[in-house]
Amino acid sequence: MIRAVILGATGYTGIELTRILSTHPDVRIVGGSSRNWAGKSACDIFPFLGESENFPLQTLEDAVTSPQADVAFLALPHGESATVARQVLDTGLKVVDLSADHRLADPQVYAEWYGSHKDPGLLTRAVYGLPEVHRELIRKADLVANPGCYPTSVILGAGPLLTRPEIDKGYLVVDSKSGVSGAGRGAKLGTSFCEVGESFKPYGVTGHRHIPEMEQELSKIAGSEVKVRFTPHLIPASRGMISTIYARLRKPLSREELREHYCARYKGEPFVRVLSLGTFPDTLMVRGSNQCHIGVEIDERTGWAIAMSAIDNLTKGASGLAVQNMNVLFGLDERAGLQGLPLFP
Amino acid sequence: MIRAVILGATGYTGIELTRILSTHPDVRIVGGSSRNWAGKSACDIFPFLGESENFPLQTLEDAVTSPQADVAFLALPHGESATVARQVLDTGLKVVDLSADHRLADPQVYAEWYGSHKDPGLLTRAVYGLPEVHRELIRKADLVANPGCYPTSVILGAGPLLTRPEIDKGYLVVDSKSGVSGAGRGAKLGTSFCEVGESFKPYGVTGHRHIPEMEQELSKIAGSEVKVRFTPHLIPASRGMISTIYARLRKPLSREELREHYCARYKGEPFVRVLSLGTFPDTLMVRGSNQCHIGVEIDERTGWAIAMSAIDNLTKGASGLAVQNMNVLFGLDERAGLQGLPLFP
Amino acid sequence: MIRAVILGATGYTGIELTRILSTHPDVRIVGGSSRNWAGKSACDIFPFLGESENFPLQTLEDAVTSPQADVAFLALPHGESATVARQVLDTGLKVVDLSADHRLADPQVYAEWYGSHKDPGLLTRAVYGLPEVHRELIRKADLVANPGCYPTSVILGAGPLLTRPEIDKGYLVVDSKSGVSGAGRGAKLGTSFCEVGESFKPYGVTGHRHIPEMEQELSKIAGSEVKVRFTPHLIPASRGMISTIYARLRKPLSREELREHYCARYKGEPFVRVLSLGTFPDTLMVRGSNQCHIGVEIDERTGWAIAMSAIDNLTKGASGLAVQNMNVLFGLDERAGLQGLPLFP
Amino acid sequence: MIRAVILGATGYTGIELTRILSTHPDVRIVGGSSRNWAGKSACDIFPFLGESENFPLQTLEDAVTSPQADVAFLALPHGESATVARQVLDTGLKVVDLSADHRLADPQVYAEWYGSHKDPGLLTRAVYGLPEVHRELIRKADLVANPGCYPTSVILGAGPLLTRPEIDKGYLVVDSKSGVSGAGRGAKLGTSFCEVGESFKPYGVTGHRHIPEMEQELSKIAGSEVKVRFTPHLIPASRGMISTIYARLRKPLSREELREHYCARYKGEPFVRVLSLGTFPDTLMVRGSNQCHIGVEIDERTGWAIAMSAIDNLTKGASGLAVQNMNVLFGLDERAGLQGLPLFP
Repeated sequence: MIRAVILGATGYTGIELTRILSTHPDVRIVGGSSRNWAGKSACDIFPFLGESENFPLQTLEDAVTSPQADVAFLALPHGESATVARQVLDTGLKVVDLSADHRLADPQVYAEWYGSHKDPGLLTRAVYGLPEVHRELIRKADLVANPGCYPTSVILGAGPLLTRPEIDKGYLVVDSKSGVSGAGRGAKLGTSFCEVGESFKPYGVTGHRHIPEMEQELSKIAGSEVKVRFTPHLIPASRGMISTIYARLRKPLSREELREHYCARYKGEPFVRVLSLGTFPDTLMVRGSNQCHIGVEIDERTGWAIAMSAIDNLTKGASGLAVQNMNVLFGLDERAGLQGLPLFP
Repeated sequence: MIRAVILGATGYTGIELTRILSTHPDVRIVGGSSRNWAGKSACDIFPFLGESENFPLQTLEDAVTSPQADVAFLALPHGESATVARQVLDTGLKVVDLSADHRLADPQVYAEWYGSHKDPGLLTRAVYGLPEVHRELIRKADLVANPGCYPTSVILGAGPLLTRPEIDKGYLVVDSKSGVSGAGRGAKLGTSFCEVGESFKPYGVTGHRHIPEMEQELSKIAGSEVKVRFTPHLIPASRGMISTIYARLRKPLSREELREHYCARYKGEPFVRVLSLGTFPDTLMVRGSNQCHIGVEIDERTGWAIAMSAIDNLTKGASGLAVQNMNVLFGLDERAGLQGLPLFP
Repeated sequence: MIRAVILGATGYTGIELTRILSTHPDVRIVGGSSRNWAGKSACDIFPFLGESENFPLQTLEDAVTSPQADVAFLALPHGESATVARQVLDTGLKVVDLSADHRLADPQVYAEWYGSHKDPGLLTRAVYGLPEVHRELIRKADLVANPGCYPTSVILGAGPLLTRPEIDKGYLVVDSKSGVSGAGRGAKLGTSFCEVGESFKPYGVTGHRHIPEMEQELSKIAGSEVKVRFTPHLIPASRGMISTIYARLRKPLSREELREHYCARYKGEPFVRVLSLGTFPDTLMVRGSNQCHIGVEIDERTGWAIAMSAIDNLTKGASGLAVQNMNVLFGLDERAGLQGLPLFP
Repeated sequence: MIRAVILGATGYTGIELTRILSTHPDVRIVGGSSRNWAGKSACDIFPFLGESENFPLQTLEDAVTSPQADVAFLALPHGESATVARQVLDTGLKVVDLSADHRLADPQVYAEWYGSHKDPGLLTRAVYGLPEVHRELIRKADLVANPGCYPTSVILGAGPLLTRPEIDKGYLVVDSKSGVSGAGRGAKLGTSFCEVGESFKPYGVTGHRHIPEMEQELSKIAGSEVKVRFTPHLIPASRGMISTIYARLRKPLSREELREHYCARYKGEPFVRVLSLGTFPDTLMVRGSNQCHIGVEIDERTGWAIAMSAIDNLTKGASGLAVQNMNVLFGLDERAGLQGLPLFP
């Protein structure tokens, strides 16, 4: 039995990790940290936890002091993971970091978007944890940087476009929409029910911090530098993310060919589904599951290829993907604990 | 491996059965019926179904003709179950009926609320499928009448009150609130997004069909006839049900005593959680799970006891309970397939 | 032209006052206060405000120093109104206080529920501002205590029951449900989108602060002390409030008679609508309007009368009612500025 | 007093017309048609209507037979307006048609997207009713084709881009999102609460019928043929529409210059607000109002200009715009009846 600790256990990604791991056949949560509820048990905060799912909550400092575990999930705010990752690694645990702290390989790029890194040496030790792209690297790693939710939806959705000669890589427009839980658990006016309910809006129109991460990975796939014109929007829903991706055609490409290309690319992938032509992704059809649904289309009239990808931002976009990475890290069946169907409706 | 068929597989309770059974270790869905999509496969309608979860959809007529299965779930409209239940039973299957057709033991009461029954002989063969109350009877049955969602929340929430001498059984007021999925899957103006979103309203104020069912079961528990003043309301949410139950005190009873009484009553029950004093149930804390959360309180100022119970109307209020009943019917671990935590948020 | 100032102009009741007054033929907003945005203009915060609706925002301290206005709306937190009301009255303005600070006539009762009052002398000077009950008193007042949202829905809904001999006044059960905006504008985890969306829950089950206010007014109507068994719940919607009111019958009363009684009671009232028998109130049908919709029913089977009343908690439950009170105070047409229809859907 | 009839009075645009006209100083609704409720009064269907706002409902056939009115609003399904428009015009009424039937000037284009037109002669008589573009033409018209909701948000949002030399008109990508009410009032599975709530999805990805209308108008503005790569999405909200518009830069353009250009273009327009730089439109900030909020941005990194426009699809996107057109048609103050602020929250 693999023993897991969740640092940041009472935030949304922490709770989602608890939900997923509670049905994982090979893992047991043995502890966690919580800024607000250290000293309590998880079931004091979440009455749906039974005895077998319960675990003690400590301060972060206590939790990282010689943890009796095999793997640590860092479900911490950006900046905080970097301060504890090395200590946890040094005690022999494998680490899946759900924050942004180890996603960018270049310390200078990190500094531009997030400020200077507290432990830049770890940036090269970390592996970007998207198994659909880097499975072999993850297998050998001990520090996995779990991708951001937007990058996961964009890399899976746009990646295959960039390996087609018909596509002009210079004109990539990505219009993304995210559920509110992506902003984390906390008291903020901007994510309060009355400000968000019945509302829809763009935000961070020119400088979302997930951009360098997308570009880093899409450039690797394309084999040349790719820039992304990226706009995030807020959906009045708790979960769910859609990225609508536009790529300019240099020469004709049929929708059938494009779909075939996606099917070939994701053949055998347990969590990626390429939808039938004429069917488009719907966040409700992936809610609470680790699936990514991708629809593709060609607009011959205007000369654009369109790819649309849907994930649950908390599952495939965060905690589900983290468990998938853990499965790869430990050589388990990649689907273990992740086969639950979405909650529909 | 127990082979299951789901009659009415593409409605909300049918989909929810599919979701739950997909992770059940001892069951495989081998077929289903669908009025609208007979001839297709389940995964044609629900792209989140993988190959291993897929099954063929037939007409109801075809599906009940010598089904190669061990158990049938009837997720059919009221009135329709009664026309096929006997045929299915005769082919040797055990039956869990999610409709109202076999819940009322008295054919005359059935007729008053639903019209005349098409096969009244089955009413006495059926067992009312609330394991927390009738576990032993269910074990020996072959036809289980799965309770309505409102009755489940009310019987579990109010039952223990009726065995206390301090409570006046003559003044039971139940104010219930249900998510929209309780109205079923179908095109109706009254459940369309724009009519229900940002709306809250009572309906069926004096004659909801779940009343005779509640009263039948609560009277058994009380040992004397109980009447319920019952008002249902519609919540602008897909899932979730709260019943707020008011019972008049004849003499003093402390909140601690009342809570202890509930804890004793539900000790060992895998799905019922009695909350700490001062904590109240929240539908989001049970969403997608088979749990029932109950909070209790005493209002000394006015002389009332209050019990509040929360369930997910599609899970503990329908398909989760149906699987729980199946587990009892087949002698399996009652929790099998039902241990998933709620989807929060 | 009546000149108005809004103290607390950027909270939800302040914004709602701005919306309503912007179409009032006889009023102009000349200033306001805002804790967070003092020094700015209202249109800096709310881009939908045009030049003609704009006004400067000051600190509360500055705003109450010799305001050049005729009326002040105190849209302030409980406790804060009491510290400024006298100063504003002394400069000759009439005051409509939307907080709870002047609603309870008895300083001892106030102290029990809110702590000691900072200016108890004002409690007897203030008039309880429900024009449907106290119109003549309001006309002569200079300090109007605007009722709480729950009390408004309960007093209008339950009041007429208490003047019927068939009703037993000793068993009043009120089950109320409120939209999230009732909790005010502010950053709180408990009202964040992900905690409230798709959730429904009771809160404050035995001690909501609106209870003494309801009981004070209902007792006046009944002519004897009335106690209310009151449970508030949170609806996953921004606006809207329903109170479902249960009163025990001592002797028979027909639904027709009961409805007639309500119609007679509210004849001529511009904002109260008694619905047809069999029609029940719906918060969406009053959203953004100053209307109160009341439905009534008799349950002969169990011996209860039921009244259901719906309001928009921010309009008839707060700012609309405040403008109605202002209209009475200044001898204007009571409907001025308040005739807009609800926003449906 | 201008007498108005609303054909299709009980659909969402019909109700919204009723709401707006109820506060219009110069208009009285004298009658309406309703397929489902002919023979009743409007207040039978909508209990929030008072006596002064009430009007009789007839069949469409009866309503168009010598109507005693000055203006008719056709809030009818596409295809149906074309069958009655001429008859209404012939009785001397001015007509504002909210359907798509008279928006496309070219009968052949109409036929391609909607099927053959029943009265193609009217296509040249109709004026495209966007006052911000065609005010002078509308003033002289008797048949106004009210624009579609998507085209209104796109033409107002993208129009100014097309008159700048820095913009490459050949790469216009429009990603739009609409509230559910845009699908009309009716019983459809696809717009039921459980299918749409907590869901977000694209639809009609290559062939939405509003495309030819946008392109017709944008081409006029640009002075050359413009094609639009257009994707609509469904927001889980009743009202609201955002169009995020991407246009390729041929040469540098600063965000300040771009904003200035928009401000100059819409100077004096009563309903269009160009937001400050760094502020982005939010559907909740326009809900229920006739305002259009536009935000602009330049992404120098990738070479795109972005414009975002928000409207309420039922108000500025349908019925509010229809009243604005009526105001222009009759020489009234264009703002009459339309000055209500949005309902926030």
